[in-house]
Amino acid sequence: MEVDFFQLKRVSEAQRIFLEACPQGPLGYESVALLDATGRVLAEPVRSQEDLPGFDRSTVDGYAVRAADTFGASAALPAYLRIADDIPMGQAANRPLGPGECARIATGGMLPPGADAVVMAEHTDLIAGDEVGIVRPAAPGTNVIRRGEDCPAGGVLVEAGTMLRPQEVALLAHAGVTRVKVARRPRVAILSTGDELVPPDTSPAPGQIRESNSFALCGLVTASGAEPVLLGHAPDEVAAIRAKLQAGLAADVVLISGGSSVGVRDMTAAVLDELGPPGVLVHGVALKPAKPTILAVAGTKPVVGLPGNPVSAHVSFLLFVQPTIRRLLGMAPFQPRWAAIRARLSKNYPSAAGRVDVLRVALVERDGELWAEPVQGKSGLISTLTSANGMVIIEETQEGLTAGQWVDVWPI
Amino acid sequence: MEVDFFQLKRVSEAQRIFLEACPQGPLGYESVALLDATGRVLAEPVRSQEDLPGFDRSTVDGYAVRAADTFGASAALPAYLRIADDIPMGQAANRPLGPGECARIATGGMLPPGADAVVMAEHTDLIAGDEVGIVRPAAPGTNVIRRGEDCPAGGVLVEAGTMLRPQEVALLAHAGVTRVKVARRPRVAILSTGDELVPPDTSPAPGQIRESNSFALCGLVTASGAEPVLLGHAPDEVAAIRAKLQAGLAADVVLISGGSSVGVRDMTAAVLDELGPPGVLVHGVALKPAKPTILAVAGTKPVVGLPGNPVSAHVSFLLFVQPTIRRLLGMAPFQPRWAAIRARLSKNYPSAAGRVDVLRVALVERDGELWAEPVQGKSGLISTLTSANGMVIIEETQEGLTAGQWVDVWPI
Repeated sequence: MEVDFFQLKRVSEAQRIFLEACPQGPLGYESVALLDATGRVLAEPVRSQEDLPGFDRSTVDGYAVRAADTFGASAALPAYLRIADDIPMGQAANRPLGPGECARIATGGMLPPGADAVVMAEHTDLIAGDEVGIVRPAAPGTNVIRRGEDCPAGGVLVEAGTMLRPQEVALLAHAGVTRVKVARRPRVAILSTGDELVPPDTSPAPGQIRESNSFALCGLVTASGAEPVLLGHAPDEVAAIRAKLQAGLAADVVLISGGSSVGVRDMTAAVLDELGPPGVLVHGVALKPAKPTILAVAGTKPVVGLPGNPVSAHVSFLLFVQPTIRRLLGMAPFQPRWAAIRARLSKNYPSAAGRVDVLRVALVERDGELWAEPVQGKSGLISTLTSANGMVIIEETQEGLTAGQWVDVWPI
Repeated sequence: MEVDFFQLKRVSEAQRIFLEACPQGPLGYESVALLDATGRVLAEPVRSQEDLPGFDRSTVDGYAVRAADTFGASAALPAYLRIADDIPMGQAANRPLGPGECARIATGGMLPPGADAVVMAEHTDLIAGDEVGIVRPAAPGTNVIRRGEDCPAGGVLVEAGTMLRPQEVALLAHAGVTRVKVARRPRVAILSTGDELVPPDTSPAPGQIRESNSFALCGLVTASGAEPVLLGHAPDEVAAIRAKLQAGLAADVVLISGGSSVGVRDMTAAVLDELGPPGVLVHGVALKPAKPTILAVAGTKPVVGLPGNPVSAHVSFLLFVQPTIRRLLGMAPFQPRWAAIRARLSKNYPSAAGRVDVLRVALVERDGELWAEPVQGKSGLISTLTSANGMVIIEETQEGLTAGQWVDVWPI
């Protein structure tokens, strides 16, 4: 009999059911030194204790002026100002600027009281030792970073749930924040199952292959901001799988990969279900590849049964596990659409309506345009993943894609 | 006087000169365990010692057959085959399949000698305990991963210069490779200079600000695959800067950030030049922001003078330092264009021909389209970098960009 995809859970429905049953993070907090904070997720908003910068700063080399003194200045009719001061870098400019006065200032220097603009050295003529001719008028604020312009006192420097990039770390340093409270990294236990699998450091006998999914999952978990915990391997036996899963529940999330045959999938689902309540929430998704994905929750711990095929496991990870990890970190579960790369599909790709198809593609530039070329190959071939650098998600409502059509490519 | 951008080096010319003077990596090798290899750069190609997989495998649950026995089969006229064997998962299928015979097989099972296709269970009717009716013909190879299809013996699994992703690591595990030879991470020394700077854990006096560039650079260096080495801070004095730089040359690359005023830049350039030969290769680039970038080489060690403004330092890092690090890792210096995100610019943006303009943008989805909105603000404002998630590079040949135009956005 044909598989009826309409009996399976839709991807969006499966994601909604599963995420609703998972706890909202962060799972806990830790305080880390700022230099170790890049890539971590901020657990609470950080506000500035003070105006940043704490004083009006020049953005150029030139002369701090009262802008009003420069109005109407031109090369033909310069405004002549007396150089009343030379502002040393890194020190307070305490001497107020009187009318008709200016002060020599370098990039980053502090404007003196009374000054409200800086004229670039290039827009001046030095007339004598203590007089300068301004040849262009400056509006108030010209070439000045005003006190508090980077962030006012009490303003939010970085919002909670932000994965810190180098620039956020720099802004926090600028504000004097040297330790930050970040979300604890979820611990994700990884178990691989299958009677045909042997460890990578052994030579497989005929009928056996080396286990590789836990290696890919380890990297995917780390890249998602979580911490992998390897549970090793279990044969396709209820007792062995149950024991490993019970141990895995010491972690925050459990992934079990393997068993693509129907009998083994059903056995895995039964073992996952008895871990509940609530147990198995979704068994089978209208998704190609990765249809036999199992989504379960044991108490509050998400447990995902990933297909044994490497491509299916990768797809299932990206659609179900990564959003869960993001949620447990206190982030929005899904990446914004802008994280996808727009490219044109190089050839027609048929797919059935009513299910999500995930297509591996290689991005190539041709004739100045970016093309996504489908990578052919069975979902048991890891080499089709190493040849690809992106995935295209074909929604349930679409019946295939047309050559030349623009698509969103999610980098892998 | 106006700055004449045509006297400055063009960005592409500066990149070429600098990269040609830098050594081609890898700088050295190290052997790492496969589980620690994600994100590292492979130093030599890895070939498979054997066919992967080592035997013909089924990709479905069903019956291994001789394809010729199924020709012409249909629901109306099934081909009846005798179930001669039940292939256990993970074991050799040694009993050859005779004409008119089939063998029960699960996903991942080994095809017996004589079988060349697998018929899905859904395309069969079980007639009696030992007979099955095939209702669809199978071509040779149907539902089979052939021996060597993932990688033949002697084939290249992963090329040298590849930054390993989870899928490459999985393919290597599949091939029994448990340690890999990767490029040593270049050590990048980071020095910040400026009389106005104080450490982030102190309270700045009027005229002073906290040092933050070394925090951003640390994260950027790490994200580029290199290892940061913090040299701390030096005041704007020749002797202090020279001493710190000399210490920094124990690393593979030295970055010195700070000093945006003309006098300090010239002093920095003089100190960098005396580190040669060849010394300073480029002093000033037709680039906004980051014009005062200095590119120097001390013997074989790249030394880059980054502007003090945080935005300028970030831009200069991406255009000059990141390509250098990639080269020292043995990778192609520039990212492929497909790594950029295509979006439409939300408003006109003027720029002068003859120089490269780098525009910070925030990507937003509106009316189902992706827009890049320019982030306004002076290059001294770190907050303009935290508000942005991409940069647009406006080439020398372009005189600004037009609202609605498609642009490449490089994620930051």
